[in-house]
Amino acid sequence: MPRYRLTLEYDGAPFVGFQRQNNGPSVQGALEDAIEKLSAQRVTVMAAGRTDAGVHALAQVVHFDLEKTYVAEKVRDALNFHLRPNPVSVLDAVVAAPDFHARFQARGRHYLYRILCRTAPPAIDRGRVWHVMHDLDWQAMHRAAQVLVGHHDFTTFRATNCQAKSPMKTLDRLAVEPAGAEIHIHADARSFLHHQVRSMVGSLKLVGEGKWDEARLAAALAARDRTACGPVAPAEGLYLTAVDY
Amino acid sequence: MPRYRLTLEYDGAPFVGFQRQNNGPSVQGALEDAIEKLSAQRVTVMAAGRTDAGVHALAQVVHFDLEKTYVAEKVRDALNFHLRPNPVSVLDAVVAAPDFHARFQARGRHYLYRILCRTAPPAIDRGRVWHVMHDLDWQAMHRAAQVLVGHHDFTTFRATNCQAKSPMKTLDRLAVEPAGAEIHIHADARSFLHHQVRSMVGSLKLVGEGKWDEARLAAALAARDRTACGPVAPAEGLYLTAVDY
Repeated sequence: MPRYRLTLEYDGAPFVGFQRQNNGPSVQGALEDAIEKLSAQRVTVMAAGRTDAGVHALAQVVHFDLEKTYVAEKVRDALNFHLRPNPVSVLDAVVAAPDFHARFQARGRHYLYRILCRTAPPAIDRGRVWHVMHDLDWQAMHRAAQVLVGHHDFTTFRATNCQAKSPMKTLDRLAVEPAGAEIHIHADARSFLHHQVRSMVGSLKLVGEGKWDEARLAAALAARDRTACGPVAPAEGLYLTAVDY
Repeated sequence: MPRYRLTLEYDGAPFVGFQRQNNGPSVQGALEDAIEKLSAQRVTVMAAGRTDAGVHALAQVVHFDLEKTYVAEKVRDALNFHLRPNPVSVLDAVVAAPDFHARFQARGRHYLYRILCRTAPPAIDRGRVWHVMHDLDWQAMHRAAQVLVGHHDFTTFRATNCQAKSPMKTLDRLAVEPAGAEIHIHADARSFLHHQVRSMVGSLKLVGEGKWDEARLAAALAARDRTACGPVAPAEGLYLTAVDY
């Protein structure tokens, strides 16, 4: 039973999220359907990160087992053929070690959050950025973001339905930088709580608007209280950009 | 009768082109409908470049006249409201000089052509790049491109239905550069013939594949014969990026 590892790019807009659910199409479902067309086998794929509805991926990693051994490039090309017209693309396929696990062996996850700051709505990048109609002070956001870096109880920045056993996480990097008319926020950690990146971004936006300062953000973190969080940023600006093993 | 000048961003995918036509929705039609909702006036807008079906714009420029004088920001915001859900966005609106003409006063037009070179199809940028499944030699493309720069008879690189009186054009710049997994081609001129950029890009791609060399491209130009052109590149990779006045 060879184990295959895929790297996926997808547009999250048409999906209820990565995970298969009863309420609509999922990336997992589209991928498992394509694998079945290739192999006549129904498998369950395991992903490094279960991205939410509307969240995009530039390099999600998944694994699954097939009875038959295929040339890895054939798996990539056949899945890309069968995935159409879903906006899901297999960037890379390799035969992995039999004990490779996309989720449990991931040592680092990298996210990008894109905010478009301008009055006019996005036409080309609709559904791919958070449209904020005014400028944000990215330098104030970056300075404040540093209070979140490190090992903390992130209860404030965690969805109420988060299933992680502990709210303790180590945030390795939270960097805010300008990119033309956009502001990009990079978040790196071994793992994140449910809605953690979007919750942090939502609060940082308040800092960028001058409504919160660094002390207020630190107090929100220290409160360990979900109600202390700013409004959660929308899914459409979020990208899973890389997973480390 | 104040004259308004707009800068537009649009995703060309759902449109038959900028120009109003009987066979489907156009950017012009969407914009004129929105203007009518704002002003109760039916106007004809004039654009700097009549982009083809599927061609995008980052900064198309148009003008039109209204009987009433509005604050320019109000025109921008109202049109953006009425343009929904079309992927057309008014980046900027200003009251222009009464003799301003978006098409005839344009002194320079700038286009970008994006080629994505990788095996896997684009998921995030589907419909926004030309997907070529292998690497291209961008340096050979850039060198060869220089034979097209200057004042030439571009009959070879002109659509058979092109309505320009003369095939003579001055190409100011044709630059090929790498951009991650993409190759970007920048084309600048006072004006272009119909399909000129896509025709040049299609032939440059042959150079990038090693099928054509610089001499072959020069011979194609010198032939002044449409049949000497390489296959025309698809619309989806082309962006009108700026217009100079």
